[in-house]
Amino acid sequence: MLGPNNYGKAEVRLVRLTRTENRHDLVDLNVSVALAGDLADTHLTGDNANVLPTDTQKNTVYAFARDGIDSIEAFGLRLARHFVDSQSTISVARVSIEEYGWRRLGPHSFARAGDAVRTAVATYDGATAWVVSGISDLVLLNSTDSEFHGFLTDRYTTLAPTQDRILATAVNARWRHGDAEGNWNQRFDDAQEAMVQAFVTTYSLSLQQTLHAMGQAVLDRVPEVVEVQLSLPNRHHFLVDLAPFGLENPGEVYYPADRPYGLIDGSVLREDAPPPGLAWSMSPS
Amino acid sequence: MLGPNNYGKAEVRLVRLTRTENRHDLVDLNVSVALAGDLADTHLTGDNANVLPTDTQKNTVYAFARDGIDSIEAFGLRLARHFVDSQSTISVARVSIEEYGWRRLGPHSFARAGDAVRTAVATYDGATAWVVSGISDLVLLNSTDSEFHGFLTDRYTTLAPTQDRILATAVNARWRHGDAEGNWNQRFDDAQEAMVQAFVTTYSLSLQQTLHAMGQAVLDRVPEVVEVQLSLPNRHHFLVDLAPFGLENPGEVYYPADRPYGLIDGSVLREDAPPPGLAWSMSPS
Amino acid sequence: MLGPNNYGKAEVRLVRLTRTENRHDLVDLNVSVALAGDLADTHLTGDNANVLPTDTQKNTVYAFARDGIDSIEAFGLRLARHFVDSQSTISVARVSIEEYGWRRLGPHSFARAGDAVRTAVATYDGATAWVVSGISDLVLLNSTDSEFHGFLTDRYTTLAPTQDRILATAVNARWRHGDAEGNWNQRFDDAQEAMVQAFVTTYSLSLQQTLHAMGQAVLDRVPEVVEVQLSLPNRHHFLVDLAPFGLENPGEVYYPADRPYGLIDGSVLREDAPPPGLAWSMSPS
Amino acid sequence: MLGPNNYGKAEVRLVRLTRTENRHDLVDLNVSVALAGDLADTHLTGDNANVLPTDTQKNTVYAFARDGIDSIEAFGLRLARHFVDSQSTISVARVSIEEYGWRRLGPHSFARAGDAVRTAVATYDGATAWVVSGISDLVLLNSTDSEFHGFLTDRYTTLAPTQDRILATAVNARWRHGDAEGNWNQRFDDAQEAMVQAFVTTYSLSLQQTLHAMGQAVLDRVPEVVEVQLSLPNRHHFLVDLAPFGLENPGEVYYPADRPYGLIDGSVLREDAPPPGLAWSMSPS
Repeated sequence: MLGPNNYGKAEVRLVRLTRTENRHDLVDLNVSVALAGDLADTHLTGDNANVLPTDTQKNTVYAFARDGIDSIEAFGLRLARHFVDSQSTISVARVSIEEYGWRRLGPHSFARAGDAVRTAVATYDGATAWVVSGISDLVLLNSTDSEFHGFLTDRYTTLAPTQDRILATAVNARWRHGDAEGNWNQRFDDAQEAMVQAFVTTYSLSLQQTLHAMGQAVLDRVPEVVEVQLSLPNRHHFLVDLAPFGLENPGEVYYPADRPYGLIDGSVLREDAPPPGLAWSMSPS
Repeated sequence: MLGPNNYGKAEVRLVRLTRTENRHDLVDLNVSVALAGDLADTHLTGDNANVLPTDTQKNTVYAFARDGIDSIEAFGLRLARHFVDSQSTISVARVSIEEYGWRRLGPHSFARAGDAVRTAVATYDGATAWVVSGISDLVLLNSTDSEFHGFLTDRYTTLAPTQDRILATAVNARWRHGDAEGNWNQRFDDAQEAMVQAFVTTYSLSLQQTLHAMGQAVLDRVPEVVEVQLSLPNRHHFLVDLAPFGLENPGEVYYPADRPYGLIDGSVLREDAPPPGLAWSMSPS
Repeated sequence: MLGPNNYGKAEVRLVRLTRTENRHDLVDLNVSVALAGDLADTHLTGDNANVLPTDTQKNTVYAFARDGIDSIEAFGLRLARHFVDSQSTISVARVSIEEYGWRRLGPHSFARAGDAVRTAVATYDGATAWVVSGISDLVLLNSTDSEFHGFLTDRYTTLAPTQDRILATAVNARWRHGDAEGNWNQRFDDAQEAMVQAFVTTYSLSLQQTLHAMGQAVLDRVPEVVEVQLSLPNRHHFLVDLAPFGLENPGEVYYPADRPYGLIDGSVLREDAPPPGLAWSMSPS
Repeated sequence: MLGPNNYGKAEVRLVRLTRTENRHDLVDLNVSVALAGDLADTHLTGDNANVLPTDTQKNTVYAFARDGIDSIEAFGLRLARHFVDSQSTISVARVSIEEYGWRRLGPHSFARAGDAVRTAVATYDGATAWVVSGISDLVLLNSTDSEFHGFLTDRYTTLAPTQDRILATAVNARWRHGDAEGNWNQRFDDAQEAMVQAFVTTYSLSLQQTLHAMGQAVLDRVPEVVEVQLSLPNRHHFLVDLAPFGLENPGEVYYPADRPYGLIDGSVLREDAPPPGLAWSMSPS
């Protein structure tokens, strides 16, 4: 029996310049399209009559970019609606976009800002549109105001409680909007600022507590956001034991470990949040 | 409002030797643990009384490895059951494992086999156990017996139909078992062989058709498997145009592109498959 | 016959906090040590009497970090001198360091700045010390003021000349100092600023010309620098052909390609530059 | 003053099929070209009259592939000679090639063999041709027959001597041929087999000793090889301390660390080896 399925073109790279007389603007995207619909034939017999080629999807991304890109949320919505509205065999479209930031150096000169990636996922089923915005790979660190103690112990526990540790993470956050139209760029700036401020100002007794404060801050700041999902690796920084060399180490020299790492997944949502529909997954259970 | 959440230690790297007089055996794993349960307090107040530290989870992985590792499915199940059964605050445990293969060179010598990664995810909620096995990064290529034509066209379609193309993909497959006890190693070998044979022998009119044949082959070969999910990138190989240099190119010189790529997600399941429960996700919608 | 050889500990990760009452400072490094000397025995017979273990090298990095890190050049020099001066069997030491930048968010809060990596290589042979500073992964783009034409053509040339293209690169630069003592941080800031400004202000007829201007700018700005080596990938941005969709593309929609890419290696040095000695390589031909 | 420089197209990906009635053969390459010569003008003024575009180099790779690829050494030599012989402004050409292996699954079906990459670098200056062959990313492990003790100690030494450890490495080896014509595929097979056998059979007192044995084995097996350079990371496997859990660990449960790692660079050459010329570097000091 054929189960849920979708297909599309992934990682269409795109740079869009806007040229005015004295200044260029630049948008740098990675766009992925996924379509679902009446696709049983191609799975079962290889009959492609209902299949819009992924190459065509790529072409559409470039052609639509010609009209300008105001925000990745709006661009994703426009593409998603196009695929469903123009092809009767396509019932759901999802467009996922990563945006890479650039810092201006001059009227037409830029340096890539490598500190985080902005993301958006727009989904449309012919009737409803869902928008999820997000940020990934934003690495944050507090060098104090973090404790961890009072935890469960068992036969396998060797961890010592601590009253002062480094807390570091790479933020991967996504937030679901309750609507599908708005000032996406402003919302993104607000959400990012709220999250970062919550990380900075929360005196942390666990990374879970910090995660929850970050999600809550987005809900508090951006009224249209109804749910926030965060996945935060705990990038452990271990104090190096310098005693064998006759040295103290009063919280100064640390070894940042690669693996293993803690991983905290959590979410915060409004009590009256509408059901997510297809916002998080094209084929929810 | 606090939403679904879990936490754990990710990417615990582990090599387990078994030493007999004349020969060593080696198992090379990457183990990730995720736990869910009565964890609201640590999110809301930073009270960690219900939190088994991720460091303890790591220790447990190493301690359990001391008893030997027969298969990653059985090892994952044992760990998942331990966390739920030993801690009243933990209601669901999921253990995800990657296994890296090694080729024997001598009684105690090995070369890493880089051709694929075997995976398993074991989930336990105190009553039911779910097992998903899989394989990732298995790169397969057919140099002929692949066509693509008869597809939908629109204003943005430029792709030419083809009667003969290279079909290449990196298999990422996961299959759900209907039970939680069995000869996991045999099942894995059977499933992998069935999938590879289906790829090799299917005359393909679309990657979707090949995907479906691969999923179907696993169901046909391994009776205990009830569902197969496949995610197959279409690694495009474009025929290079040599005409400007006065040369024909009768299907000989190709450019394998990095990005963009097609991406086909699909699944096949038995009509009488039991509901997936927590097999695919710790917090299903 | 045993040829040139060296050994050491690579990628010692290190975070150093400096704590004052109202503010923490943070340095984030990746340190690699390589030692050469009287090491024939360990190669030929496995006699390790002359071998300082790489584990000891790692410990030394951490112990020295306890005294503070003013600049990566000075820290590297101190380590290199230590290994040669303290061990009679070690005749040459090289310490290579990468520094990852962080942006301040608060008195003890930071965000990783992902836009470039600062590097230094300090080498010491018991008599002379050499210092090479550098920067890597600094991605720069000019959206105009770049042409490419008038080139050689042959039977295999299909490239069209262009009067206006995007010029983008990921700067990997290293510059050799003529001395081994100085205000390294100031020099780095000056060199980086000079290079970036040269990229921004050079009207480019080839990436080679831009490379040369960047190297020249470092020599002009920092008197102690005697040689600059640059390796610049040409990150091609191809104008997308929108004509099949009835659209013009007046320099607006581009496809940034991953591979292949041009790669330009070049260097600029002062006429009176001293010979490089071991600055660039521990075992020069 | 302009210093040494070169330019070229890097990472031209290429799959070459050979079609016979009952069977296809496949070669999968990544080709990089670098050219040096009379290139001062493009650096100093942007005059490109002497510059063969990197796009043309890419085209040439594809056009030459049309004639078939017997070995990467021969293909690289042919390309290198072409660039120098056909362009008076180009005096040195270097072609570096990576070859990815595939395992046959059927007459026209293949699975990528991920266990190592074969490499070749061919350099030509109009008179002399140099060939370096190699292998990279071949991960080998001996689970016993490795000791490490008798080393130097100082204030910073904490490492305990060991009589039995896991020895693991990722082989990066390159060997220089004394000629420029031969049965390259046979030589490669012989060299690889000799190296692997030396790793397997050497009772190791240090990774340096193993490295030297591996290099020596290549010289012993392949008479035309005159020098072997090896760079071997020491992939540490640390015995996990299970004592806190009341368990012994008699060499069974290991933690394979990511970073830091030891790194051993060494070379072996024949006493009568000819000077390397441009074999290892286009611009030797």
